[in-house]
Amino acid sequence: MEDQTIQITQSHSKKQKPNSEQLEFGRIFTDHMFIMDYTVEKGWYDPRIVPYQPITLDPAAMIFHYGQTVFEGLKAYKTKENKVLLFRPEMNMARLNLSNERLCIPRIDEDFVLKALIKLIEMEKDWIPTAEGTSLYIRPFIISTEPYLGVAASTSYKLMIILSPVGSYYKEGIHPVKIFVEREYVRAVAGGTGKAKTAGNYASSLKAQEVSEKQGYSQVLWLDGIEKRYIEEVGSMNIFFKINGEVVTPELNGSILAGVTRDSVISLLKYWGIPVSERKISIDEIYDSYKNGSLEEIFGTGTAAVISPVGELNWEGEKMDINNGETGPLSQKLYNTLTNLQNGTEPDPFDWTLEVK
Amino acid sequence: MEDQTIQITQSHSKKQKPNSEQLEFGRIFTDHMFIMDYTVEKGWYDPRIVPYQPITLDPAAMIFHYGQTVFEGLKAYKTKENKVLLFRPEMNMARLNLSNERLCIPRIDEDFVLKALIKLIEMEKDWIPTAEGTSLYIRPFIISTEPYLGVAASTSYKLMIILSPVGSYYKEGIHPVKIFVEREYVRAVAGGTGKAKTAGNYASSLKAQEVSEKQGYSQVLWLDGIEKRYIEEVGSMNIFFKINGEVVTPELNGSILAGVTRDSVISLLKYWGIPVSERKISIDEIYDSYKNGSLEEIFGTGTAAVISPVGELNWEGEKMDINNGETGPLSQKLYNTLTNLQNGTEPDPFDWTLEVK
Ligand SMILES: Cc1ncc(COP(=O)(O)O)c(C=O)c1O
Ligand SMILES: Cc1ncc(COP(=O)(O)O)c(C=O)c1O
Repeated sequence: MEDQTIQITQSHSKKQKPNSEQLEFGRIFTDHMFIMDYTVEKGWYDPRIVPYQPITLDPAAMIFHYGQTVFEGLKAYKTKENKVLLFRPEMNMARLNLSNERLCIPRIDEDFVLKALIKLIEMEKDWIPTAEGTSLYIRPFIISTEPYLGVAASTSYKLMIILSPVGSYYKEGIHPVKIFVEREYVRAVAGGTGKAKTAGNYASSLKAQEVSEKQGYSQVLWLDGIEKRYIEEVGSMNIFFKINGEVVTPELNGSILAGVTRDSVISLLKYWGIPVSERKISIDEIYDSYKNGSLEEIFGTGTAAVISPVGELNWEGEKMDINNGETGPLSQKLYNTLTNLQNGTEPDPFDWTLEVK
Repeated sequence: MEDQTIQITQSHSKKQKPNSEQLEFGRIFTDHMFIMDYTVEKGWYDPRIVPYQPITLDPAAMIFHYGQTVFEGLKAYKTKENKVLLFRPEMNMARLNLSNERLCIPRIDEDFVLKALIKLIEMEKDWIPTAEGTSLYIRPFIISTEPYLGVAASTSYKLMIILSPVGSYYKEGIHPVKIFVEREYVRAVAGGTGKAKTAGNYASSLKAQEVSEKQGYSQVLWLDGIEKRYIEEVGSMNIFFKINGEVVTPELNGSILAGVTRDSVISLLKYWGIPVSERKISIDEIYDSYKNGSLEEIFGTGTAAVISPVGELNWEGEKMDINNGETGPLSQKLYNTLTNLQNGTEPDPFDWTLEVK
C-alpha cells in the first residue's frame, strides 16, 4: 500500500468559512474528504481526496445493521507563525488498529493513512481556525459496507477522513463541569468493546447521558459494569483525581479507552516530578478522600476538551464539591501546558507535535 | 400519523427472482422498500414505498459514528393455498419500541408501521419463496441521520423496511449445531443494551464468533458478563434445556433479547402440559445434569432458524455430547409445530398468524 498514490479531485466551489468566534463542535465540514475502499480481494485500495459529499450505500450495508465500525478523533492546530501542528497523530493511528482488531476489521497501514491525513490537512489548512481554543477536528472512521444481513464480519469497508473546524467542546470552556456518577446504566464491561473506539459504546451511553442532563449534569462518570464500584471514565474523557498531593487515574483495564491526552498528562506529571499512578480506584475511596478533605482536584482528559476540571461529583445524591467548584491549579497548569504545546507557543521537549508542511 | 397515506412509486424494472432451492440468508433483496423520515419538528413523516435503491447520507451522519440504531427481524410465509402469513408481527413492532426507548430513538406508531409493512409485503408477495424452509425475511430498521459529531441523540432518523427471500439460516437445516461456551468475550451486561435489538450488540459479538468458528463451532453461547457463570443466549437465538423432563430457559434479565420464538415455545410447552420455567441457569448446573445423565436436549430458538437443536456444547474444553448429537424429539416436535403454524398447514389455536390479504 505504501506505493499507492492518492488521487485528488478538487472541489469546484469552495464553501464559506465560518466565523472563528461562533464555532460549535462537529457541525461544519471542510471542502474535501479522504476515502479509501477495502475488499478481501484487493485489500485497501483507491485512496483519494474528493470534494466533501454524501456517501451512497445499499440499505443492507452491514454498518446499518450490525455496527461493525471504528473511529478516531484528533486535532490540527495553527500556531501564531501560521505553522500547522498535529499532536501525537501516530497514537491515533495505532489505536485505530487496536479498535480494528477488536471489531474484526482489517488492519490499516498506519503510516500510509497518516500520510493521507497530512495531505488532506495540507489542502484544507485555510480551514484551521486561529481564535483561542479553536482547532480543526479530524475524524477518521471505518464502516462496513457489504450488503448482507448475516451476522458476520463484512468483506468490504470504507475508510474516510472528514474535517470540522471547532470551537471549545465544552461551551463553558475551562470552567468546571458537574458530573453524575452513573449507577443504573453500564457503558462497557471487561471482555466487551470498552477499550475500542467503536459506535456501540457511544450508543449505549446516550440514555444515561440524557437522564443526567435532565438533572443538570453535563457528563456521566461510569463505574465498572461488574461491581459498579470502580471508576472507569467519563463520556468522552478519561478521569484523574488529585488526592493528598498524588495524582491517580484508573488503569487500562480493558474496558476503558487508552486516551492520548491521558497518556500525555501522565508523561507531563512524571516530567514535573508529581507522583502519579494508574490503578483501580473505587468510588468509596473518592468519597472518603472527599470527606477527610484530601481530595484536591478532579479533571477529565480528552482531545475535545483537553482538560476539563470537575466542580461537582454527584454520587447517589451525595454532592461532592470539588475545590469549591473552581478550576484547581494543577488542572489549569495541565491545560495551559498542553494547549501551549499543541499551539506551538511552548517548546516541545517530548517531540509530540508533528508539523504539517 | 394514523392518517398519513403511504406514497407508492413503482419500480420500472423488476429483478429476476432467485431459484427457491439456491437461496441463502440475506443476500438478495426485493424490488421495493419502505422509508419514512423523522425530524424533531415534523415527527415521523413522508411514509413511502419506493424502488429498492441505495441511500445517500452525509459522512457525518451519526449512524456512522455513534451507532444509534435499532432493528427487527421477522418473516412472511406462503401457504400451500397461496395465502401470505405473518407470525406475531405485533410483537416485533412492540420490541422495536422497547429498543427505541433504550437507544433514545423516538417511538414509532406500531399500528402504522405494521400497516406499512403489510402494504409492502402485499406488493412483493411474488417474492415469497415456497420451497420447504424458505420464507421472505423482513428487516425493519431505524438509523440516526443528523450530520453532527457531538455525542448526543440524533434529531433526525430514517426508518426503513427491506425484504429478502431466504433459505434456511443454518445451511445444515434442522441438524444439530455445535456450540462453544464463551469465557473471554462478553456480549452484554445488566445495565447495557443487551435487551435491545441494536447494532453494537452484534458488532461486539463478532470476535468471539470468529474465534469459535476457527475451532469448528457454529455459534457462541454467552454467559453473563459479571460472574461468567449464568447462561444468557446464543448469537441470534435464545436457548432452552430439557433436563429430567423439565424445560428451562434463562429468564428475561435485562441483558438478553426477549425472542418472539422464545415466547412462542414457552406458550406451546405450557399448552402441551410440559413443565417449563424461566430462571437463572448456571453453566455448572448444565454440566452437572450432563454428567448425571439428566440433560436430554438443548435447542436454540429464533426467527432465522426457528428451532436449532444443539448436538455439542464445548465448555472449557469439556465436550458435552447432547442426545448423541442427534435432534431430540422435543426439538423436532417444536420445529414441526412452529413451521406448520407459520406455513398455515396446522390450525392456529393461539391466533398467532396474521394473513396479508
Ligand atoms: C470513551 C472515551 N474515553 C476517553 C477519551 C479520551 O481520549 P483522547 O485523549 O485520545 O481524546 C475519548 C475520546 O475522545 C473517549 O471517547
Ligand atoms: C441476540 C438475539 N437473541 C435472540 C433472538 C431470537 O429472537 P426472535 O425469536 O424474536 O427471532 C435474536 C433474533 O433473531 C437475537 O438477535
